[in-house]
Amino acid sequence: MIKYPTGSGASLADFQKNQPVSPKEISFSDRGMTLEQQINESNQFYLAQKMAVVHKKPTPIQIVKVDYPKRSRAVIREAYFRQASTTDYNGVYRGYYLDFEAKETKNKKSFPLKNFHEHQLVHLANCLDQGGICFAIIGFMTLRRYFVTPASFVIDAWHEWKNGAKSSMALSDIVKSSIEIKTGYRPTLPYLEAVDQLIADRK
Amino acid sequence: MIKYPTGSGASLADFQKNQPVSPKEISFSDRGMTLEQQINESNQFYLAQKMAVVHKKPTPIQIVKVDYPKRSRAVIREAYFRQASTTDYNGVYRGYYLDFEAKETKNKKSFPLKNFHEHQLVHLANCLDQGGICFAIIGFMTLRRYFVTPASFVIDAWHEWKNGAKSSMALSDIVKSSIEIKTGYRPTLPYLEAVDQLIADRK
Repeated sequence: MIKYPTGSGASLADFQKNQPVSPKEISFSDRGMTLEQQINESNQFYLAQKMAVVHKKPTPIQIVKVDYPKRSRAVIREAYFRQASTTDYNGVYRGYYLDFEAKETKNKKSFPLKNFHEHQLVHLANCLDQGGICFAIIGFMTLRRYFVTPASFVIDAWHEWKNGAKSSMALSDIVKSSIEIKTGYRPTLPYLEAVDQLIADRK
Repeated sequence: MIKYPTGSGASLADFQKNQPVSPKEISFSDRGMTLEQQINESNQFYLAQKMAVVHKKPTPIQIVKVDYPKRSRAVIREAYFRQASTTDYNGVYRGYYLDFEAKETKNKKSFPLKNFHEHQLVHLANCLDQGGICFAIIGFMTLRRYFVTPASFVIDAWHEWKNGAKSSMALSDIVKSSIEIKTGYRPTLPYLEAVDQLIADRK
């Protein structure tokens, strides 16, 4: 039987940034929070309010060696990061399948397309084919501006990059193609309001 | 930059069973395959055929220590299994959000309810509230009979168990409440045909 560690909800990203998040530390503004933290906090809020069920997928790990100490929980002693085959977030909202990737930049004028990986765009295209609501949440962290950008726009821009046409998406083009998220008190990043607009535009 | 191991697609379950699965080894009958292997193989088929996008979620791991050897990929040296907060599988099919848990038994007459965990049923109930298509795939491995059982049936049975009324679901009740999967040539476990029926019944 697997024994789980007690009390910790820290994610890989928290670990990498050495900033564990406990419920007590959740703030209701975006000050100092990464985009991922803002989305995770918003998802907790949406789940508690029964507005949507969206979770971040765990990082895929290939486990090679596990110790099973007596009277203690199992310890993974050798493991490797694996390439993901999907985006980071998916879930269900008002009967719709949601699928999205979250990306942040400190740039002020454009978003570099190299931040997207091919498997993420292939997955978004596959989910679009199945009628999913697919997008990226793009955060310009210095500007504190956040966008729900349709997956179709990101996929087109990424292919243009691969064809040598451009290396980034201009903020002005993102503004035109996206729905800007009005940051709020609760949740921190109320992205579902922008998703409502995306769903309405699709019809 | 994270370097990924080359060539391996083995999952945690494969590791635990010491049976790595390579594409060459995929068979087109259920002989010797666990229920999870059958579902994963079927999901690969559905994805390749552009019929559905369903993935198994990675096992959540809490990472404590990582080594970054020079000229080599990162090695996780201390990590722990974490409690999941969702089911194992979700995805999108014909615009519907699918969410399910897969469970197998060697029993021939009933399925023990202790095999379901509370977080799985809470998650299924939350997804049902949002209009998702939620179910369990229950495999009676000795009988080679497989069922798509509506989440509502499993949730009710689980609460009866918690109230002391019963400890298992009788096969005869599962037959009545579920849609049996007709096992096939490709994919191994064509569960989407049963899901079509589940969707039709919901209307």
